[in-house]
Amino acid sequence: MTYHEVPESAYAALMAVLGPEGLSREEDARLAYGHDETEDLSYPPAVVARPLTTAQVAETVRICARHALPVTPIGGRTGLSGGALSVHGGVGLAVDRMNAIESIDERNLQVVVQPGVITQVLQDAVAAAGLYYPPDPSSRGSCTIGGNIAENAGGPRAVKYGVTRDFVLNLEVVLPGGEVIWTGANTLKNATGYDLTRLVVGSEGTLGIITKAVLKLVPLPKETRLMLVPFASAERACEAVSATFRAGVTPSAMEFMERDAIAWTLRYTEGLPAQVTADPGAYLLIEVDGDHADAVMRDCETVLGVMEGHGAGEVLFAETSAEKDALWRMRRSVPVSVKAHSVYKEEDTVVPRFALPRLLAGVKEIGRRHGFTSVCYGHAGDGNLHVNIIKGDLPDAFWEQELPKAIREIFELTVSLGGTLSGEHGIGLVQRPYMDIAFSDVQIALMRGIKAAFDPQGIMNPGKVLP
Amino acid sequence: MTYHEVPESAYAALMAVLGPEGLSREEDARLAYGHDETEDLSYPPAVVARPLTTAQVAETVRICARHALPVTPIGGRTGLSGGALSVHGGVGLAVDRMNAIESIDERNLQVVVQPGVITQVLQDAVAAAGLYYPPDPSSRGSCTIGGNIAENAGGPRAVKYGVTRDFVLNLEVVLPGGEVIWTGANTLKNATGYDLTRLVVGSEGTLGIITKAVLKLVPLPKETRLMLVPFASAERACEAVSATFRAGVTPSAMEFMERDAIAWTLRYTEGLPAQVTADPGAYLLIEVDGDHADAVMRDCETVLGVMEGHGAGEVLFAETSAEKDALWRMRRSVPVSVKAHSVYKEEDTVVPRFALPRLLAGVKEIGRRHGFTSVCYGHAGDGNLHVNIIKGDLPDAFWEQELPKAIREIFELTVSLGGTLSGEHGIGLVQRPYMDIAFSDVQIALMRGIKAAFDPQGIMNPGKVLP
Repeated sequence: MTYHEVPESAYAALMAVLGPEGLSREEDARLAYGHDETEDLSYPPAVVARPLTTAQVAETVRICARHALPVTPIGGRTGLSGGALSVHGGVGLAVDRMNAIESIDERNLQVVVQPGVITQVLQDAVAAAGLYYPPDPSSRGSCTIGGNIAENAGGPRAVKYGVTRDFVLNLEVVLPGGEVIWTGANTLKNATGYDLTRLVVGSEGTLGIITKAVLKLVPLPKETRLMLVPFASAERACEAVSATFRAGVTPSAMEFMERDAIAWTLRYTEGLPAQVTADPGAYLLIEVDGDHADAVMRDCETVLGVMEGHGAGEVLFAETSAEKDALWRMRRSVPVSVKAHSVYKEEDTVVPRFALPRLLAGVKEIGRRHGFTSVCYGHAGDGNLHVNIIKGDLPDAFWEQELPKAIREIFELTVSLGGTLSGEHGIGLVQRPYMDIAFSDVQIALMRGIKAAFDPQGIMNPGKVLP
Repeated sequence: MTYHEVPESAYAALMAVLGPEGLSREEDARLAYGHDETEDLSYPPAVVARPLTTAQVAETVRICARHALPVTPIGGRTGLSGGALSVHGGVGLAVDRMNAIESIDERNLQVVVQPGVITQVLQDAVAAAGLYYPPDPSSRGSCTIGGNIAENAGGPRAVKYGVTRDFVLNLEVVLPGGEVIWTGANTLKNATGYDLTRLVVGSEGTLGIITKAVLKLVPLPKETRLMLVPFASAERACEAVSATFRAGVTPSAMEFMERDAIAWTLRYTEGLPAQVTADPGAYLLIEVDGDHADAVMRDCETVLGVMEGHGAGEVLFAETSAEKDALWRMRRSVPVSVKAHSVYKEEDTVVPRFALPRLLAGVKEIGRRHGFTSVCYGHAGDGNLHVNIIKGDLPDAFWEQELPKAIREIFELTVSLGGTLSGEHGIGLVQRPYMDIAFSDVQIALMRGIKAAFDPQGIMNPGKVLP
């Protein structure tokens, strides 16, 4: 991969736009903005730009376009597919200083935000007005809305409310030529021209830089109940998932964790009820929400009936908000716990939800055959299974040469079940080698054509998504 | 506009693929497939192709590509923007014989359908399995799923459940070169490459022909309550709309009809309760649904409180399913009633919902200034107002020369309120002259680039969407 240094003339032009507060080529800054949460990868940009305004972003991109320099948009650096890594050098454009919530529109249930707003900060701000922004990746305390949109992030609540895409109404985007556009309108319905909004969502920063977003809000549900349901086996837990929806209830979260995920997480989570142990083969963490306590309780009873019918053990209901918080903290800390335990690779497989038991069994079988262990957890209600392959004591040669073949088998299985490579992490850098499993040359050519329409020079986040 | 005849060699090649059952150049067939529900427009194709299989569609398109012949996809011919009109002649490709529901997957809450399935036929089929496909345009008894997807159709239930786009998981598409692709995967979440699925949704048949769709279903709600709420003025009715959502209730429909719409519709709707008259200035038709009767009733009480606070008259609750059907029939027959009354033009304006009273007042003011009357109704909960401009006794010269200036003013107002040209009817043929109001040259150039990536020859539904 060619690494692009930034020539002095370009650096001087950038400095004139951004000032010393907004531009750095110091080693510290380059390293800090050269990683995300993907494995242990480090790809520092040649310079770090941290603009404050859309105009500064546009001017920065225009300078890069003139010098044919790569521009890599950088959000909260919590990505799990390497989308924010400056693999070709050039300018790493971090939006972390553009972090204002510009307006909360309670009359239209909309919010206007800059891309660097932390997801949880937004959620807390709108909750204070009785409103709800549901998408909540595990990293919501540090990820940004801009990154969420670029990757089409999901999270536990997607199963009822939808993913980030479903909450994006309109985007201000700086195109790779430096032009500024809005992608749509601030309306709930829109049948006016091609859907540029949803094309930019999930395009992982390869079509432009999101500088502002108009997001849809919904009324904050008044009641939530959270239960932790143990199962003897992971397969039995997964089978209970699709049965729940068939029983007519759509939980607001339906999370799956297998035994090892729980065992490692228990070390990192304080305040859990004593009943929570790593003895069961798997847990489902199920949340039901609504506006009426009695209706929510009856939905919970329906869920309980389904769980018992699938051989669940004794169900733990969170009685206090402290217990709810502890259970959610346990679930959210699974990725961190796995990371603390060993080097690992995470695959973000997704299938139709009824196929989840078959996917899980297949992943374990592939692991046995190739000689690796995996820790699986994820958003079972969406059929979205995070497969964490553990390096442990495996030799480097296996990790670098044999493992990609096994990962290929996992993705082939996923696609054969009607699924695809990524449910919510994106393709970024690390899943690119597997795109041919999900897409034919014809489909890839269409995507390349779209990319060329936006970015004929190919400067916007090069080396990502497309093989 | 150039009109393309189909040369004998191409006709013979098409006949070899489609047979006499699937191909016609008779006047009757050309006229029958040469109109939709847009005004009184008639643009017959040179030949009508009615394939039975994806392979036949692909072969038909390949023949057209070889001869550089326009191909216009045709669904239920209920469109309101002229998207299915063969304005450049060539081949009108009707999917009405591809009308199988291939499978209803109760385990994954998905359905696989061919594009010619009538929307209501699908809804009834899945309802028999306790499942729900919410998008329900007024024409649901005769429109097709393929057309709904091509236009990103909405309807009353969009306010709670979303538009067609939100229920499309994956599409089989024949591209303008004759290649067959799937656009995505059969999963609820997908962050794998550019979102070709949602790019094809709403592209109005200009990027390819949808030959199969995998749609998402949800559990059928067990309880619905329907109420008709009279207001002294249309503005007061519109003001009550956004207040309802602020009160924390999301109705499953929130429809608006002003006095004239009701007056004309009453003549065409039997079985209405005697209280329904054209005396009030406007009505809201509000549906609340859910799984628990008592919770639905409490939501209705919240809605009633909001309505009373905004000066509503006496609310009529539909007591029987016959009354519910009659009220819905009344709402759905508004477009037909308007059409029976006079030649008209319909604009499908959409704004953020709180801006609806301002839009409505502005439309009436523009009408007074230019000297036309309009009948307004639509999906108030979505800010989606159908403006029907009535020709009545207006001279043809006014209709053809003056009126487009007034329509331009309506759209300029719409866009200035944060809205856009079309909420659910699409741009098609008739709104193309107004695209510059919603989009800059930069945005249009992006759309043209996308079109060129799919259709370099420009044969797929030429003359539509892009100016």
